[in-house]
Amino acid sequence: MQTDREPSGKRIPPGTRPGIPAVSFRSDTSVKTMPSTEYKYLNDIDSPDDLKKLPVESLPEFCCELRDFIIKQLSENPGHLASNLGTVELTAALHYVYDTPEDKLVWDVGHQAYAHKIITGRRSRFHTNRKMGGISGFPSRDESPYDAFGGGHTSVSISAALGIAKALELQGEKHRVVAVIGDGAMTGGLAFEGLNNAGVSRQTDLLVILNDNRMSIDPNVGALKEKLLRMSTSRRYNDFKTRLWAYLAPRAPRLLRIIRKLGNAVKHSLLDSGNIFESLQFRYFGPVDGHDIKTLVSVLNDLKEIPGPKLLHVLTVKGKGYPEAEHNQTLWHAPGRFDADTGERLGTPAASAADRWQDVFGETVVELAEMNPAVVGITPAMPTGCSLNTMMQRMPDRCFDVGIAEGHAVTFSAGLAAQGMVPFCNIYSSFMQRAYDNVIHDVAIQRLGVVLCLDRAGLVGEDGQTHQGEFDLAYLGCIPHMTVAVPMDEHELRNMMYTAMNARTPFAIRYPRGKGPGAAWRDTPFENLAIGRGRCLREGDRIALLTFGHVGNFAASAARRAAEQNGLSVAHYDMRFAKPLDEELLHRVGRRFRRVITVEDGILRGGAGSAVLDFLNLNGYDCRVTSLGIDDAFVKHGSLSQLYALCGYDAEGIYQAILNAVHDEKE
Amino acid sequence: MQTDREPSGKRIPPGTRPGIPAVSFRSDTSVKTMPSTEYKYLNDIDSPDDLKKLPVESLPEFCCELRDFIIKQLSENPGHLASNLGTVELTAALHYVYDTPEDKLVWDVGHQAYAHKIITGRRSRFHTNRKMGGISGFPSRDESPYDAFGGGHTSVSISAALGIAKALELQGEKHRVVAVIGDGAMTGGLAFEGLNNAGVSRQTDLLVILNDNRMSIDPNVGALKEKLLRMSTSRRYNDFKTRLWAYLAPRAPRLLRIIRKLGNAVKHSLLDSGNIFESLQFRYFGPVDGHDIKTLVSVLNDLKEIPGPKLLHVLTVKGKGYPEAEHNQTLWHAPGRFDADTGERLGTPAASAADRWQDVFGETVVELAEMNPAVVGITPAMPTGCSLNTMMQRMPDRCFDVGIAEGHAVTFSAGLAAQGMVPFCNIYSSFMQRAYDNVIHDVAIQRLGVVLCLDRAGLVGEDGQTHQGEFDLAYLGCIPHMTVAVPMDEHELRNMMYTAMNARTPFAIRYPRGKGPGAAWRDTPFENLAIGRGRCLREGDRIALLTFGHVGNFAASAARRAAEQNGLSVAHYDMRFAKPLDEELLHRVGRRFRRVITVEDGILRGGAGSAVLDFLNLNGYDCRVTSLGIDDAFVKHGSLSQLYALCGYDAEGIYQAILNAVHDEKE
Repeated sequence: MQTDREPSGKRIPPGTRPGIPAVSFRSDTSVKTMPSTEYKYLNDIDSPDDLKKLPVESLPEFCCELRDFIIKQLSENPGHLASNLGTVELTAALHYVYDTPEDKLVWDVGHQAYAHKIITGRRSRFHTNRKMGGISGFPSRDESPYDAFGGGHTSVSISAALGIAKALELQGEKHRVVAVIGDGAMTGGLAFEGLNNAGVSRQTDLLVILNDNRMSIDPNVGALKEKLLRMSTSRRYNDFKTRLWAYLAPRAPRLLRIIRKLGNAVKHSLLDSGNIFESLQFRYFGPVDGHDIKTLVSVLNDLKEIPGPKLLHVLTVKGKGYPEAEHNQTLWHAPGRFDADTGERLGTPAASAADRWQDVFGETVVELAEMNPAVVGITPAMPTGCSLNTMMQRMPDRCFDVGIAEGHAVTFSAGLAAQGMVPFCNIYSSFMQRAYDNVIHDVAIQRLGVVLCLDRAGLVGEDGQTHQGEFDLAYLGCIPHMTVAVPMDEHELRNMMYTAMNARTPFAIRYPRGKGPGAAWRDTPFENLAIGRGRCLREGDRIALLTFGHVGNFAASAARRAAEQNGLSVAHYDMRFAKPLDEELLHRVGRRFRRVITVEDGILRGGAGSAVLDFLNLNGYDCRVTSLGIDDAFVKHGSLSQLYALCGYDAEGIYQAILNAVHDEKE
Repeated sequence: MQTDREPSGKRIPPGTRPGIPAVSFRSDTSVKTMPSTEYKYLNDIDSPDDLKKLPVESLPEFCCELRDFIIKQLSENPGHLASNLGTVELTAALHYVYDTPEDKLVWDVGHQAYAHKIITGRRSRFHTNRKMGGISGFPSRDESPYDAFGGGHTSVSISAALGIAKALELQGEKHRVVAVIGDGAMTGGLAFEGLNNAGVSRQTDLLVILNDNRMSIDPNVGALKEKLLRMSTSRRYNDFKTRLWAYLAPRAPRLLRIIRKLGNAVKHSLLDSGNIFESLQFRYFGPVDGHDIKTLVSVLNDLKEIPGPKLLHVLTVKGKGYPEAEHNQTLWHAPGRFDADTGERLGTPAASAADRWQDVFGETVVELAEMNPAVVGITPAMPTGCSLNTMMQRMPDRCFDVGIAEGHAVTFSAGLAAQGMVPFCNIYSSFMQRAYDNVIHDVAIQRLGVVLCLDRAGLVGEDGQTHQGEFDLAYLGCIPHMTVAVPMDEHELRNMMYTAMNARTPFAIRYPRGKGPGAAWRDTPFENLAIGRGRCLREGDRIALLTFGHVGNFAASAARRAAEQNGLSVAHYDMRFAKPLDEELLHRVGRRFRRVITVEDGILRGGAGSAVLDFLNLNGYDCRVTSLGIDDAFVKHGSLSQLYALCGYDAEGIYQAILNAVHDEKE
């Protein structure tokens, strides 16, 4: 699951949609927090085996405790609250019914797996969640045998679970495989590819659980979404069908086969409700109330008897049991610290007053759109995450939330650009990996003027290795026709967006997560930057620092310190563009300096520093280049400042690199 | 369209499937070739405007001529025959009915667009198809205003067409947009993402034409496929619905709106056949006979009156009108040269007796699978193209053709590996771009032992810029945990596959299209190679040549020539692995040589040569490195030998680089 995927729009309150009856949820699982010493069951549950010892009647109370534990933990140590409250009963039911870890659970929505982590022996370590050296916020094969498949990106689970199921089949093992996928994740093409392939694997015992909280995507986005809403309300029919199957499967397999062989008309009316899953030859069951654990246990037990690929549609409520979170699911998706008893959200002390990078994008794109009718905005289900929501409110006709579908977002943008529009397509760096061929094949080859805005580029912190935007400078840098701009501050980002609007060429702008360095940018006049030209920020003659993007701020401070404390004359160039490189500037550097340090917030192999070295070598300059960036590794979770230090390119790391370079030079 | 996507399995002859009536095609469009002087219409058709001047009664004869022209042209200048014969009538009907180029045609299946090229003014240049400097085998925006969107990869058209349609809407233009997509391409997740997004754009006038030739994917693969087959046979119902819509749309828009607002039950029976497209809120029409041009013209005219997103299901026959091609569609997908009158296929004169790289893969994977029960094979709809078909025949249970779905293929492989299998997942280099996040997120982060076999890596020749496997060394090289092996000959490929099987780590092997250099490999004993270790092929002391993969053969010949003709002592190292690099070997090279030349069949930025330079620089060696490979450009079509020469790394190019390096050294 892409963690910052958030509900992006209007919620349709139950019962307000014409002609569609409300599905009601029992609200008796709402709890207030309790002292941990009062837990009757939870403190003794260190594995699914412990859970199985409880009588089914005790499960609702156990779930209350589990929910209470999650709320308390997250109030102190921030994480994804609302989605994890929604899956408490489902998780408990799965571990109660299935023989994990021999039976395999694959969590598509990584940020729904907290209850799973707690039940599977990680309760005592749960306070380390997402902290450096602690447990990951997502399932991880390294962490536990109960995590059958890891991951933080969406739409992966059906494919992975089918692979596991096929392997078990070939190995003659009888274990079962369950994939739990969110309704938002179901709009990703990969999920469809998995369903399409699994649907013909009639012997493969695969259960896909659709965790439908109806909130992770704006109801206006996606035909599938609307279809699910209709399906989830045709309860009577589905109930009948579910009961029929559950009754017949163990008792009358031959009759079942006969029914399935009946003529199309009969079969259609009996077994086929015309839903998309049945179109793909999955057996569809549901919807069931995902907070009624006794029913869940009973349904899951029944489904164990039904062979082949099948889908259980479970309705859950994001934030279930914590009224504040139920009421405002967007805000409580990942609320930060809060008072568990009062629901008051506690700000981070001494937070910087600076704006977030994403807000610079969000406000600037509106300004550009007001200036230029060709400007449109595109997001794959991340309007709040990338701040396109401002433009969506102001100019709904010119904004497109296309659902969790990065590949489509980019190719759709290419289509818009082919017809003369200027699409600003905003996708987090690590998610842009999902649209790589679309960037090459649909945008770059055709030299279409799509502006790709890569938010969360470089290290992202607590979300860890699946979400670090490590690779974009490498994977975009190698693509012909691409321009890759890297703003050092808010003002630069603003001007790069303006420059991109005018350029009408494939243009990527990559900028980091979180707050900017605090440069003035609002209402400043737009400036068209020269593409592929950097700027000199500090003159010097001993060493040249060439920086790409926001790390230039670390470098500026390191250069100042080297001058002040060590009397070293360090030149500092903000390259502005990772592609094309400023060749004139590099010739000047090559002629004047023997020692060069490059700094970038990304992987070193294939990165911008590597391209600088290529250029200097090709042109015969006898420079030694030290490249700072991420070495050949995936970077696990931790705070941003911890990770910059770990990777050696915070201000201290750059300062040390300057000293080392001077030291080498003397040898 | 991925050009080499081929029909992969059994054809179900019409009428032999129990319970499913045959759909018959008229066969009166079968033609034999005729002298071009006898063309009554074709010679005067230089644009769609010319075509529109013909009375509708003349269109069948025009189509005969067009088909005859394609057959004759392709008999002399090879290209994709069967698929292009299938779309003659559809293409003529589209240009007859629509006001192109103002109305936009987006061809998903690039290799179905020959008739389109011929009708839109490229008849006289058609003999240059796929040749260097000639027209491209795919639609290309650079080539013609009639090519609204270019492309050679599948599943792209719906997203692109929706983008174009939205742009037209915002611009207040009333032009229409049509996407033509093949049934195979419809299994790609991107197509689903496009449908899902388009389905809610109720005001957008978008027609998707599903060109269903029932042959591009094995009917066993993909639930959607089976669904299409059932849909295409429920003709009576669909005919009724199509006629009802066509009748009502222009005459009674209000009635239409009322019908659409009726209760679910009525609506379901009247308008909703429970098919997947209607699940996604497309209006579904068809199926219609794609070779009956008069009906096509009439249906397309009717559909112009129906607003919103709609899908027309057209049944066509691959190879239509050329009996040999109809009879054996796989063989005639891209048959090479042939005698148009007799159907005799003419071999390329003086073809090398060597085996194709893909055959080394195809036979070796069977040997490995016989040796190791954990070995399984995965292909996204390319069993013949990658030669996995041998294993599919011998061990059908251990081979998976997952449909055109590269992302799923890789994540599915990751699932298999998570459960202890050793999947050999074979995907062409340029198509692996479509699975980039799956490689990073599902394979590499989890260090799963998936063997990614990248066929068609490096330049591929006539398929041109969409298909060149230019980028894999860059985009895989930057991924931590990956091993990237590059075999220089058939024997190396064989041993690298063996090594990969034993390694149980993320392992990519990339090898080129076509025939190998001819090394003995069959029945040779397997050898486990040391991962990340290269080998010295020739000692020398003046210059070091470091080569990656098959280009080592060009380099060996260049080094020999430099020694014989110029008395130059050139050392040659076959690096074997682009990642990890052989650091011990590089230290030796760094200590002994001042001039190094690297050669790779791929893009330079971020490539293997760049990584070599990084290493030498990091370790303080004072070497100049000349890197040969593809400069910052997409490489258009041409023969392989033309393109190697163009990019400067054929034997002659390497020889010249050796001389230049020596010359520089003297300065």
